[in-house]
Amino acid sequence: MTNEELFAATAIKTWTTVTARLEKLLSSLSDDELQSEVSPGRNRVYYILGHLAAYHDRLLPMLGLGERLHPELDDLFIANPDRTFPDEIAAAELRKMFTEVNAKVTSAIEAMPPADLLQKHEAVSAEDFAKEPLRNRLAVFEIRTAHAMFHAGQIRLVAKS
Amino acid sequence: MTNEELFAATAIKTWTTVTARLEKLLSSLSDDELQSEVSPGRNRVYYILGHLAAYHDRLLPMLGLGERLHPELDDLFIANPDRTFPDEIAAAELRKMFTEVNAKVTSAIEAMPPADLLQKHEAVSAEDFAKEPLRNRLAVFEIRTAHAMFHAGQIRLVAKS
Repeated sequence: MTNEELFAATAIKTWTTVTARLEKLLSSLSDDELQSEVSPGRNRVYYILGHLAAYHDRLLPMLGLGERLHPELDDLFIANPDRTFPDEIAAAELRKMFTEVNAKVTSAIEAMPPADLLQKHEAVSAEDFAKEPLRNRLAVFEIRTAHAMFHAGQIRLVAKS
Repeated sequence: MTNEELFAATAIKTWTTVTARLEKLLSSLSDDELQSEVSPGRNRVYYILGHLAAYHDRLLPMLGLGERLHPELDDLFIANPDRTFPDEIAAAELRKMFTEVNAKVTSAIEAMPPADLLQKHEAVSAEDFAKEPLRNRLAVFEIRTAHAMFHAGQIRLVAKS
Protein backbone atom coordinates (compact mmCIF):
# COMPACT_ATOMS: atom_id res chain seq x y z
CA MET A 1 0.00 0.00 0.00
CA THR A 2 1.14 3.55 -0.65
CA ASN A 3 1.27 6.05 2.17
CA GLU A 4 -1.84 7.77 0.83
CA GLU A 5 -3.65 4.44 0.84
CA LEU A 6 -2.52 3.80 4.41
CA PHE A 7 -3.69 7.22 5.60
CA ALA A 8 -7.11 6.69 4.00
CA ALA A 9 -7.47 3.07 5.16
CA THR A 10 -6.62 4.03 8.74
CA ALA A 11 -9.34 6.71 8.85
CA ILE A 12 -11.85 4.25 7.37
CA LYS A 13 -10.87 1.61 9.93
CA THR A 14 -11.52 4.09 12.75
CA TRP A 15 -14.97 4.76 11.25
CA THR A 16 -15.82 1.06 10.96
CA THR A 17 -14.59 0.41 14.51
CA VAL A 18 -16.83 3.19 15.81
CA THR A 19 -19.94 2.21 13.83
CA ALA A 20 -19.49 -1.46 14.84
CA ARG A 21 -19.24 -0.38 18.48
CA LEU A 22 -22.44 1.63 18.14
CA GLU A 23 -24.30 -1.19 16.43
CA LYS A 24 -23.20 -3.52 19.24
CA LEU A 25 -24.38 -1.10 21.93
CA LEU A 26 -27.73 -0.73 20.17
CA SER A 27 -28.17 -4.47 19.70
CA SER A 28 -27.83 -4.94 23.47
CA LEU A 29 -31.10 -3.02 23.89
CA SER A 30 -34.59 -4.24 22.98
CA ASP A 31 -36.88 -2.02 20.92
CA ASP A 32 -38.67 -1.08 24.16
CA GLU A 33 -35.38 -0.24 25.82
CA LEU A 34 -34.58 2.20 22.99
CA GLN A 35 -37.21 4.37 24.71
CA SER A 36 -34.85 4.82 27.69
CA GLU A 37 -33.39 8.28 28.25
CA VAL A 38 -29.59 8.23 28.42
CA SER A 39 -29.87 10.30 31.61
CA PRO A 40 -33.01 11.64 33.33
CA GLY A 41 -34.64 14.28 31.10
CA ARG A 42 -32.15 13.80 28.26
CA ASN A 43 -32.57 12.29 24.77
CA ARG A 44 -33.96 8.82 24.34
CA VAL A 45 -31.72 6.24 22.68
CA TYR A 46 -34.38 5.99 19.96
CA TYR A 47 -33.86 9.67 19.11
CA ILE A 48 -30.07 9.38 19.14
CA LEU A 49 -30.28 6.39 16.78
CA GLY A 50 -32.36 8.43 14.33
CA HIS A 51 -30.06 11.43 14.78
CA LEU A 52 -26.98 9.38 13.87
CA ALA A 53 -28.76 7.70 10.93
CA ALA A 54 -29.68 11.17 9.60
CA TYR A 55 -26.17 12.59 10.00
CA HIS A 56 -24.52 9.55 8.45
CA ASP A 57 -27.00 9.68 5.56
CA ARG A 58 -25.97 13.31 4.99
CA LEU A 59 -22.39 12.15 4.50
CA LEU A 60 -23.36 10.59 1.17
CA PRO A 61 -23.82 13.84 -0.81
CA MET A 62 -21.47 15.80 1.47
CA LEU A 63 -18.51 13.56 0.59
CA GLY A 64 -19.53 12.91 -3.01
CA LEU A 65 -20.45 9.30 -2.21
CA GLY A 66 -23.93 9.26 -3.76
CA GLU A 67 -27.55 10.17 -3.20
CA ARG A 68 -29.13 10.19 0.23
CA LEU A 69 -31.18 7.15 1.26
CA HIS A 70 -33.34 8.81 3.94
CA PRO A 71 -33.61 12.63 3.74
CA GLU A 72 -36.91 12.35 5.64
CA LEU A 73 -34.92 11.74 8.84
CA ASP A 74 -33.63 15.34 9.09
CA ASP A 75 -36.90 16.83 10.18
CA LEU A 76 -37.50 14.20 12.83
CA PHE A 77 -33.98 13.83 14.21
CA ILE A 78 -31.88 16.93 13.37
CA ALA A 79 -34.10 19.97 12.86
CA ASN A 80 -36.29 19.20 15.88
CA PRO A 81 -35.50 17.95 19.37
CA ASP A 82 -36.60 14.65 20.87
CA ARG A 83 -40.33 14.24 21.57
CA THR A 84 -41.39 16.95 19.08
CA PHE A 85 -43.42 14.39 17.15
CA PRO A 86 -44.93 11.00 17.99
CA ASP A 87 -42.49 8.30 16.83
CA GLU A 88 -43.26 7.91 13.14
CA ILE A 89 -40.71 5.21 12.42
CA ALA A 90 -40.71 1.84 14.19
CA ALA A 91 -37.53 1.06 16.14
CA ALA A 92 -36.80 -2.01 14.00
CA GLU A 93 -37.06 0.08 10.84
CA LEU A 94 -34.80 2.77 12.27
CA ARG A 95 -32.16 0.20 13.20
CA LYS A 96 -32.28 -1.13 9.65
CA MET A 97 -31.89 2.36 8.17
CA PHE A 98 -28.87 3.03 10.38
CA THR A 99 -27.14 -0.21 9.39
CA GLU A 100 -27.84 0.35 5.69
CA VAL A 101 -26.63 3.94 5.73
CA ASN A 102 -23.42 2.98 7.54
CA ALA A 103 -22.78 0.16 5.07
CA LYS A 104 -23.33 2.45 2.09
CA VAL A 105 -20.97 5.12 3.46
CA THR A 106 -18.34 2.49 4.19
CA SER A 107 -18.43 0.78 0.81
CA ALA A 108 -18.50 4.07 -1.10
CA ILE A 109 -15.62 5.60 0.81
CA GLU A 110 -13.57 2.42 0.48
CA ALA A 111 -14.04 2.68 -3.29
CA MET A 112 -12.87 6.32 -3.42
CA PRO A 113 -9.28 6.99 -4.52
CA PRO A 114 -7.43 8.14 -1.35
CA ALA A 115 -6.45 11.56 -2.70
CA ASP A 116 -10.12 12.33 -3.38
CA LEU A 117 -10.64 12.45 0.39
CA LEU A 118 -8.58 15.65 0.32
CA GLN A 119 -10.93 17.39 -2.10
CA LYS A 120 -13.40 19.99 -0.90
CA HIS A 121 -16.64 18.76 0.59
CA GLU A 122 -19.99 19.85 -0.74
CA ALA A 123 -20.72 22.52 1.88
CA VAL A 124 -17.61 24.68 1.34
CA SER A 125 -17.13 27.09 -1.56
CA ALA A 126 -14.18 26.80 -3.96
CA GLU A 127 -12.91 30.20 -2.75
CA ASP A 128 -12.99 29.25 0.92
CA PHE A 129 -11.44 25.86 0.21
CA ALA A 130 -8.55 27.50 -1.65
CA LYS A 131 -7.77 29.43 1.56
CA GLU A 132 -8.51 26.57 3.97
CA PRO A 133 -7.49 23.23 2.44
CA LEU A 134 -8.29 21.36 5.66
CA ARG A 135 -11.99 21.90 4.96
CA ASN A 136 -11.85 18.68 3.00
CA ARG A 137 -13.94 15.51 2.86
CA LEU A 138 -11.63 13.70 5.27
CA ALA A 139 -12.19 16.38 7.93
CA VAL A 140 -15.96 15.93 7.70
CA PHE A 141 -15.60 12.14 7.79
CA GLU A 142 -13.39 12.29 10.88
CA ILE A 143 -15.65 14.76 12.70
CA ARG A 144 -18.65 12.54 11.98
CA THR A 145 -16.74 9.57 13.37
CA ALA A 146 -16.05 11.60 16.52
CA HIS A 147 -19.70 12.71 16.67
CA ALA A 148 -20.80 9.07 16.55
CA MET A 149 -18.56 8.28 19.52
CA PHE A 150 -19.94 11.30 21.41
CA HIS A 151 -23.36 9.67 21.29
CA ALA A 152 -21.98 6.16 21.81
CA GLY A 153 -20.70 7.39 25.18
CA GLN A 154 -24.23 8.45 26.07
CA ILE A 155 -25.87 5.22 24.90
CA ARG A 156 -23.26 3.30 26.91
CA LEU A 157 -24.83 4.68 30.09
CA VAL A 158 -27.95 2.58 29.51
CA ALA A 159 -26.64 -0.22 27.26
CA LYS A 160 -25.60 -3.64 28.46
CA SER A 161 -22.37 -4.12 26.48
CA MET B 1 1.16 21.14 1.38
CA THR B 2 1.72 17.63 0.08
CA ASN B 3 -1.05 15.06 0.28
CA GLU B 4 0.73 13.32 3.15
CA GLU B 5 0.92 16.62 5.01
CA LEU B 6 -2.79 17.23 4.39
CA PHE B 7 -3.75 13.77 5.65
CA ALA B 8 -1.70 14.27 8.83
CA ALA B 9 -2.86 17.87 9.39
CA THR B 10 -6.51 16.85 9.04
CA ALA B 11 -6.20 14.13 11.70
CA ILE B 12 -4.42 16.57 14.01
CA LYS B 13 -7.12 19.18 13.45
CA THR B 14 -9.78 16.63 14.45
CA TRP B 15 -7.81 15.94 17.64
CA THR B 16 -7.46 19.64 18.50
CA THR B 17 -11.16 20.24 17.80
CA VAL B 18 -12.09 17.40 20.15
CA THR B 19 -9.71 18.37 22.96
CA ALA B 20 -10.82 22.03 22.73
CA ARG B 21 -14.45 20.89 22.95
CA LEU B 22 -13.64 18.84 26.05
CA GLU B 23 -11.73 21.64 27.71
CA LYS B 24 -14.69 23.96 27.06
CA LEU B 25 -17.16 21.47 28.55
CA LEU B 26 -14.95 21.07 31.61
CA SER B 27 -14.48 24.82 32.07
CA SER B 28 -18.27 25.22 32.26
CA LEU B 29 -18.21 23.24 35.51
CA SER B 30 -16.84 24.42 38.88
CA ASP B 31 -14.45 22.21 40.82
CA ASP B 32 -17.38 21.19 43.02
CA GLU B 33 -19.48 20.36 39.97
CA LEU B 34 -16.76 17.99 38.75
CA GLN B 35 -18.05 15.75 41.53
CA SER B 36 -21.33 15.27 39.61
CA GLU B 37 -22.04 11.85 38.19
CA VAL B 38 -22.73 11.94 34.44
CA SER B 39 -25.81 9.82 35.12
CA PRO B 40 -27.06 8.37 38.44
CA GLY B 41 -24.58 5.76 39.70
CA ARG B 42 -22.12 6.34 36.85
CA ASN B 43 -18.65 7.90 36.82
CA ARG B 44 -18.07 11.36 38.19
CA VAL B 45 -16.78 14.00 35.79
CA TYR B 46 -13.72 14.25 38.06
CA TYR B 47 -12.90 10.60 37.35
CA ILE B 48 -13.47 10.95 33.60
CA LEU B 49 -11.15 13.97 33.55
CA GLY B 50 -8.39 11.94 35.22
CA HIS B 51 -9.12 8.96 32.96
CA LEU B 52 -8.67 11.09 29.83
CA ALA B 53 -5.55 12.78 31.21
CA ALA B 54 -4.04 9.33 31.87
CA TYR B 55 -4.92 7.96 28.42
CA HIS B 56 -3.65 11.05 26.63
CA ASP B 57 -0.45 10.93 28.67
CA ARG B 58 0.03 7.34 27.53
CA LEU B 59 0.00 8.55 23.93
CA LEU B 60 3.39 10.16 24.46
CA PRO B 61 5.48 6.95 24.59
CA MET B 62 2.92 4.98 22.53
CA LEU B 63 3.36 7.28 19.52
CA GLY B 64 7.07 7.99 20.05
CA LEU B 65 6.34 11.57 21.13
CA GLY B 66 8.33 11.59 24.35
CA GLU B 67 8.32 10.61 28.01
CA ARG B 68 5.13 10.50 30.06
CA LEU B 69 4.36 13.48 32.28
CA HIS B 70 2.04 11.75 34.77
CA PRO B 71 2.32 7.94 34.92
CA GLU B 72 0.90 8.13 38.46
CA LEU B 73 -2.55 8.71 36.95
CA ASP B 74 -2.92 5.13 35.64
CA ASP B 75 -3.52 3.55 39.01
CA LEU B 76 -6.11 6.13 40.00
CA PHE B 77 -7.96 6.53 36.72
CA ILE B 78 -7.38 3.49 34.47
CA ALA B 79 -6.52 0.42 36.55
CA ASN B 80 -9.22 1.10 39.14
CA PRO B 81 -12.82 2.30 38.87
CA ASP B 82 -14.20 5.56 40.24
CA ARG B 83 -14.37 5.91 44.03
CA THR B 84 -11.73 3.22 44.69
CA PHE B 85 -9.56 5.77 46.48
CA PRO B 86 -10.24 9.11 48.16
CA ASP B 87 -9.47 11.87 45.63
CA GLU B 88 -5.71 12.31 45.88
CA ILE B 89 -5.39 15.07 43.30
CA ALA B 90 -7.20 18.41 43.59
CA ALA B 91 -9.56 19.19 40.74
CA ALA B 92 -7.61 22.31 39.76
CA GLU B 93 -4.41 20.28 39.56
CA LEU B 94 -6.10 17.58 37.47
CA ARG B 95 -7.44 20.18 35.03
CA LYS B 96 -3.91 21.59 34.67
CA MET B 97 -2.45 18.13 34.02
CA PHE B 98 -5.05 17.46 31.31
CA THR B 99 -4.37 20.74 29.53
CA GLU B 100 -0.60 20.24 29.70
CA VAL B 101 -0.74 16.67 28.45
CA ASN B 102 -3.00 17.64 25.53
CA ALA B 103 -0.69 20.52 24.60
CA LYS B 104 2.37 18.27 24.70
CA VAL B 105 0.73 15.62 22.51
CA THR B 106 -0.40 18.29 20.03
CA SER B 107 2.93 20.06 19.69
CA ALA B 108 4.88 16.80 19.46
CA ILE B 109 2.63 15.27 16.82
CA GLU B 110 2.62 18.50 14.80
CA ALA B 111 6.42 18.31 14.74
CA MET B 112 6.43 14.68 13.51
CA PRO B 113 7.04 14.09 9.79
CA PRO B 114 3.67 12.90 8.38
CA ALA B 115 4.92 9.53 7.16
CA ASP B 116 6.12 8.72 10.68
CA LEU B 117 2.45 8.51 11.71
CA LEU B 118 2.29 5.36 9.61
CA GLN B 119 5.04 3.63 11.58
CA LYS B 120 4.22 0.97 14.12
CA HIS B 121 3.18 2.12 17.57
CA GLU B 122 4.99 1.01 20.69
CA ALA B 123 2.53 -1.71 21.74
CA VAL B 124 2.66 -3.82 18.56
CA SER B 125 5.50 -6.19 17.62
CA ALA B 126 7.45 -5.78 14.38
CA GLU B 127 6.13 -9.19 13.25
CA ASP B 128 2.49 -8.31 13.83
CA PHE B 129 2.94 -4.89 12.26
CA ALA B 130 4.39 -6.46 9.11
CA LYS B 131 1.16 -8.42 8.76
CA GLU B 132 -1.19 -5.62 9.86
CA PRO B 133 0.14 -2.24 8.68
CA LEU B 134 -2.96 -0.45 9.96
CA ARG B 135 -1.75 -1.03 13.52
CA ASN B 136 0.13 2.24 13.16
CA ARG B 137 0.52 5.38 15.28
CA LEU B 138 -2.22 7.17 13.35
CA ALA B 139 -4.75 4.44 14.22
CA VAL B 140 -4.00 4.83 17.93
CA PHE B 141 -4.19 8.62 17.65
CA GLU B 142 -7.55 8.45 15.90
CA ILE B 143 -9.01 5.92 18.34
CA ARG B 144 -7.90 8.10 21.27
CA THR B 145 -9.60 11.08 19.61
CA ALA B 146 -12.78 9.00 19.32
CA HIS B 147 -12.40 7.83 22.94
CA ALA B 148 -12.18 11.46 24.08
CA MET B 149 -15.45 12.23 22.29
CA PHE B 150 -17.09 9.14 23.87
CA HIS B 151 -16.52 10.72 27.26
CA ALA B 152 -17.28 14.26 26.02
CA GLY B 153 -20.76 12.99 25.20
CA GLN B 154 -21.14 11.84 28.81
CA ILE B 155 -19.80 15.06 30.34
CA ARG B 156 -22.18 16.99 28.06
CA LEU B 157 -25.08 15.54 30.03
CA VAL B 158 -24.11 17.59 33.09
CA ALA B 159 -22.10 20.45 31.52
CA LYS B 160 -23.50 23.89 30.70
CA SER B 161 -22.02 24.46 27.23
